[in-house]
Amino acid sequence: MEATLNPAETLARLVAVLPPGAVVTDPAVLPSYSRDRELWAPSGTPLALVRATETAHVVEVMRWATEHAVPVVPRGAGSGLTGGANAIDGGLVLSLEQMDQILRLDQHDLCAVVQPGVLNAELRRVARTAGLMYAPDPGSSDFCTIGGNVATNAGGLCCLKYGVTRDAVLGLEIVLANGDVLRTGGRTMKDVAGLDLTSLFVGSEGQLGIATEVTVRLLPAPPTPATLIASFADLAHAGVAVHEIVRSGRPSMCEVMDQTTLRAVEAHRPSGLDLDSAALLLVQSDEADAATEITTFAKICEAAGATFTMATTDPVESEMLTMARRVALDALEAQGQWLLEDVCVPLSAVPELVAFCHEVGTRHDVLVACFGHAGDGNMHPTVVFPIGDTAAERRAEAAASDLVAKALTLGGTVTGEHGVGIAKRSKMEAQVGPVHLRVQRAVKQVLDPANILNPGKSLA
Amino acid sequence: MEATLNPAETLARLVAVLPPGAVVTDPAVLPSYSRDRELWAPSGTPLALVRATETAHVVEVMRWATEHAVPVVPRGAGSGLTGGANAIDGGLVLSLEQMDQILRLDQHDLCAVVQPGVLNAELRRVARTAGLMYAPDPGSSDFCTIGGNVATNAGGLCCLKYGVTRDAVLGLEIVLANGDVLRTGGRTMKDVAGLDLTSLFVGSEGQLGIATEVTVRLLPAPPTPATLIASFADLAHAGVAVHEIVRSGRPSMCEVMDQTTLRAVEAHRPSGLDLDSAALLLVQSDEADAATEITTFAKICEAAGATFTMATTDPVESEMLTMARRVALDALEAQGQWLLEDVCVPLSAVPELVAFCHEVGTRHDVLVACFGHAGDGNMHPTVVFPIGDTAAERRAEAAASDLVAKALTLGGTVTGEHGVGIAKRSKMEAQVGPVHLRVQRAVKQVLDPANILNPGKSLA
Repeated sequence: MEATLNPAETLARLVAVLPPGAVVTDPAVLPSYSRDRELWAPSGTPLALVRATETAHVVEVMRWATEHAVPVVPRGAGSGLTGGANAIDGGLVLSLEQMDQILRLDQHDLCAVVQPGVLNAELRRVARTAGLMYAPDPGSSDFCTIGGNVATNAGGLCCLKYGVTRDAVLGLEIVLANGDVLRTGGRTMKDVAGLDLTSLFVGSEGQLGIATEVTVRLLPAPPTPATLIASFADLAHAGVAVHEIVRSGRPSMCEVMDQTTLRAVEAHRPSGLDLDSAALLLVQSDEADAATEITTFAKICEAAGATFTMATTDPVESEMLTMARRVALDALEAQGQWLLEDVCVPLSAVPELVAFCHEVGTRHDVLVACFGHAGDGNMHPTVVFPIGDTAAERRAEAAASDLVAKALTLGGTVTGEHGVGIAKRSKMEAQVGPVHLRVQRAVKQVLDPANILNPGKSLA
Repeated sequence: MEATLNPAETLARLVAVLPPGAVVTDPAVLPSYSRDRELWAPSGTPLALVRATETAHVVEVMRWATEHAVPVVPRGAGSGLTGGANAIDGGLVLSLEQMDQILRLDQHDLCAVVQPGVLNAELRRVARTAGLMYAPDPGSSDFCTIGGNVATNAGGLCCLKYGVTRDAVLGLEIVLANGDVLRTGGRTMKDVAGLDLTSLFVGSEGQLGIATEVTVRLLPAPPTPATLIASFADLAHAGVAVHEIVRSGRPSMCEVMDQTTLRAVEAHRPSGLDLDSAALLLVQSDEADAATEITTFAKICEAAGATFTMATTDPVESEMLTMARRVALDALEAQGQWLLEDVCVPLSAVPELVAFCHEVGTRHDVLVACFGHAGDGNMHPTVVFPIGDTAAERRAEAAASDLVAKALTLGGTVTGEHGVGIAKRSKMEAQVGPVHLRVQRAVKQVLDPANILNPGKSLA
């Protein structure tokens, strides 16, 4: 047995098997690869950053990491919201962002094979040029990667009709902890040959293996959507409208913004929103008869007590209307520091959750805005407080805790689409229970016995 | 440590903790619980049958099975096609068929909570009375159970639009090997709190745990479908039509029958099918503008060279047309013994697979019919031979082997919706490879260390 190596010697072993420049230790570079967009979770100082450009590099990294027991934090664009990609002291950060090629776009088999560093929006754009759609559309579409989408099982605005990332992934190439390469699924639409390892890895937040290639399903591009906005003086009325809409049709989007959110949006980007509304719904249809369906949805809103509705089939107007929703977080950020929640509740519980946001804001003397995907129950209550006000920060944390607890009492989840990471680590067991957590950890243990794959995150 | 018990003493321990009559050893009853619908896989003589009527019974069974190292084969209606529910010598057969209650149908949260013994068709019927749809519709809908659907991740005719069983399952109650009760998911539409154990258990064929409660997603019931049949003199033309249909619209069904199949169907149940056609397509749309979409599909077929098309929006006519496809297996059974395959190939490879069926039939001097879900590539080539002709049986097996090998060379799977069971056990590795199989077995080992959950099946 050889003598124990110091960190520099250990790293030298890795440098030797990777291309020149792949291993980065520049202290000016490392900090920008040490965190994601979440603001509170701790992060460490990594030993180094590796920029992989092919699967073989990831294999080398994991073999080296196994041999030297070095933790590896895989990373795409760092757009996560839970600290899931935060670096670990003495660990390696493995960036997949340069593996950014769309390897194949298959118009006959309705699928694409992509590297993990491809941006979500880029895949959507390229698919669209072929008359196809890659459905998952997280809010961060412009700057998040498919690899990160796979790691978190990312959602988006279209989920109520088209499902989440897991529903769009047909197959994966995964580098396991020991460097073995696992291939799951493929170009077929159905496959029950053995356990569904594809779904096991989707949403595993880099803790079971590292996705180095993703085969995704593409759908025929839908027609231009028709869009509806509807204002309500009463939250409960908006709830009734959402219920009727998802019960009667196939909306491709059904978003809600509460008064706090829409006031922030109007302040940030004036567009004449009614600041006295308790809630604003934003609904789209991309059915073949979208104009007809959106008219039906408008009538539903009016019958439910909407004070104002406006429907359009004009793409530019549609884009302007949806922009109000898309800038919600930016608008809130303009008002202070934000703490973004990501609970999902049963559909019928959305109005109660939104009402509770106001109650909890009053209770803890912080601003709580609520917006999100009303059509699938995945809501983003957002606590806002003055930057640098540590007392307000404590109150904000207390408010966020109350919100998560409320979601659980409503039969909801602690995270609908952002993942657990570090931010929700202490909250997961309250939802899933000890048996579920034990099974998760057992699966993690068998796939990563040395606990080198993104340790310290949800399953730590 | 107590003395080793003989089988009768061991069983007495179980009888003591279950209700009177729950444990059945009547030799007149056991044989009908010893096999599924597959004809070739071996089955054993079980020690006993247990009919569970509540989760607590399943818990008692697994605790007892763990203590005494007795293998347990869970079972729904026995409608499987791979021997997956076949009994094991000296093992227990655990029937869930009496856990047949729909516990909750939630029109507000668009979900239902059901016991595993509920028939698929019954859940679909009850959902429909509430204006909702439980989407998965395996061919065996009338006599298969939701528990079995979960075990195999069952498919059906609607998958190309609505997905497979996994896509419809929101949560599970699972009894683990040691009797612990695991709950996954729930009534929310999105949930990324931890590993996706729901998907891991869906399709695990009773080898990781036993589903005792299933929460399923319901969708708004679609409009009455419009239906199209189209005949083609050339397989390749039908292939072009299928491609254009799935590229341009959202069919809720897109089935194909080759000439051998449709001749058998016409002989079995005459309805004026064109016996000279190389292929018959059966297409449905359940969009809001179904009549318009089906007309578009008809034009696509005509442009692709269809020799005959007929479209209808009449529900009775639609039912008659789809019946031709639904009776395909019965019709082939009337011609002899059948050996049913279940491969799934990339969409573009369907015509080549269908053409190969004819080639392989000639090569091995057996009848090979081909029908299936052309719209998602999941095909059921079916070898037919005279009952009792053992030489023909050998040739049929050789033909089936060639078909599976061909599917793999086309980038396909050895099973699209029936599962692995015993029938495909020896073929799975050729598809998934040794790393995948090792990971599957490692997950099985950690969840069922004593290998008492349906041993001898896909992961044995």
